[in-house]
Amino acid sequence: MEPVSFPPLSRVAICGGTHGNEMSGVYIVREMQKQKVDQKGSVSITTVLSNPRAVDACIRYTETDLNRCFTDALLSGPITDSTPYELRRARELNAQLGPKGSREAVDLLCDLHNTTANMGMCLILYSFDWISLHIYKYIQSKMTSPPVRAILFDIPSSEAYSLESVGKHGFTIEVGPQPHGVLRADIFNMAKEAMDLSIEWLQKFNSGSAFEGGEVEGYTLVRSVDYPRDPTTNDITAAIHPQLQDNDFKLLHKGDPVFQSFSGETVKHEGEDLYPLFVNECAYYEKKIAFHLTKKITVTLPSISVKAD
Amino acid sequence: MEPVSFPPLSRVAICGGTHGNEMSGVYIVREMQKQKVDQKGSVSITTVLSNPRAVDACIRYTETDLNRCFTDALLSGPITDSTPYELRRARELNAQLGPKGSREAVDLLCDLHNTTANMGMCLILYSFDWISLHIYKYIQSKMTSPPVRAILFDIPSSEAYSLESVGKHGFTIEVGPQPHGVLRADIFNMAKEAMDLSIEWLQKFNSGSAFEGGEVEGYTLVRSVDYPRDPTTNDITAAIHPQLQDNDFKLLHKGDPVFQSFSGETVKHEGEDLYPLFVNECAYYEKKIAFHLTKKITVTLPSISVKAD
Repeated sequence: MEPVSFPPLSRVAICGGTHGNEMSGVYIVREMQKQKVDQKGSVSITTVLSNPRAVDACIRYTETDLNRCFTDALLSGPITDSTPYELRRARELNAQLGPKGSREAVDLLCDLHNTTANMGMCLILYSFDWISLHIYKYIQSKMTSPPVRAILFDIPSSEAYSLESVGKHGFTIEVGPQPHGVLRADIFNMAKEAMDLSIEWLQKFNSGSAFEGGEVEGYTLVRSVDYPRDPTTNDITAAIHPQLQDNDFKLLHKGDPVFQSFSGETVKHEGEDLYPLFVNECAYYEKKIAFHLTKKITVTLPSISVKAD
Repeated sequence: MEPVSFPPLSRVAICGGTHGNEMSGVYIVREMQKQKVDQKGSVSITTVLSNPRAVDACIRYTETDLNRCFTDALLSGPITDSTPYELRRARELNAQLGPKGSREAVDLLCDLHNTTANMGMCLILYSFDWISLHIYKYIQSKMTSPPVRAILFDIPSSEAYSLESVGKHGFTIEVGPQPHGVLRADIFNMAKEAMDLSIEWLQKFNSGSAFEGGEVEGYTLVRSVDYPRDPTTNDITAAIHPQLQDNDFKLLHKGDPVFQSFSGETVKHEGEDLYPLFVNECAYYEKKIAFHLTKKITVTLPSISVKAD
């Protein structure tokens, strides 16, 4: 692959509290604001508490999920008296950190999230974003503790609904397991390390370091699986099976147990072998998602370096 | 110790959803109601979803913590237009399952709870309640999975604030770790097993089995510890230290780390050696409790058997 060069990446936004009860980002951002961290070498840093009302109430959102509000359509539609708070807030964030797709947008937007699922250190990014993919490769090479993995989306930026899509480049740092509303030091430390490494990468990039290409692995969504439900009440009738619980990223084969019904029966995986993700994420009950099923893919990256002015 | 006899224990109440986001009890009770479980041998069973409004919203409570509403004073005080929903609901539950302290009260009230702390299988009971202590001893002897432990309160029934105090005898089954709003099959199975063993014990007791006395161990509260806080904003400035996290019931010695501040300093345990409990329970942030400190005590139980009519 041909090497690629990019202009310097001098403006980064670190966001937390996009979901108000995911505590790593809330406390990382608050601490950076307290310490007045706004510059590291060549990189200027904007820290943002994305959903302050939800953070105050320690809930995911107040009216609608903020992290589903950043499509071009939602950012440009009409605003009325009944527009949810989060959609208004999305416009504010887009004005502050974007506008999405414009030259004024921050160079990198890094959004800090937590999950109750045993996802370890996981980046969520776009398969066409070579900068983010290189940062992922760098974090993977530097973090020693758990495996560092990535979920890769392959949708156009205009349809991307989450906050990180407002930056020229961007990704979500998703760390778990951690109960929502709880702050665990181990998870906080992991999220902070990944964020620090991202900023370190930007500094190296800006100072002229070339980053070699190569292959990275990631997971792409095949389908989502809902809980078994009572057809009358719509209540769930089963929990994630103990053999699947906490086994995110462990290949599911045909016949492997996936649910244990409340009356004791086992529901098994059917169809092709796939990797389960976000197994038993608290916030996905209302979205009718017990887990995602994904396949593993390999992406080949070009070597990259900074473009001389 | 002299053997003691009690009248038959024929009426048990199984309660779940006293905290609306603690899911084991919610789903155990719903499943029993669906299966119309209302009698097992000599034991009639009443199943109750204690806080239906909080269960529907999947939150701990709507206006005030229901499980702090069952003191004699709160159950008999005036009711006005501004009385919180949970206090009204406590009166309803007291009328249905009590009245507390009366001959009409259910013989045993078993309330199902979850915690985000790594408490394993823990019963919370009163050190003067020999029936509950014997059931604890029985569960301990029968459950093979994790250690079964007990927190012992030594307050008069009139001052006991939680739901199980409405029964003639009663205890809380507290199982964790489980994020609030999440249902884990392993935790569900443990809670259900402890509940089933409690009912099994009542049947054996009623049918004339004698239960030998002996010693049981439990933990009693010495004091609670709050998070370090910023004196101006009152925000927490530290998380539970990774070496304390998940180590409930592991003796804390002087100098052991208990908090990791967001700027990286370690706060250490001071004073006598004590056992930490409910370490990093989600719902205790608002109560300003990072963990409880307890000491281990031994209680000697008399042999007990049913009193002939």
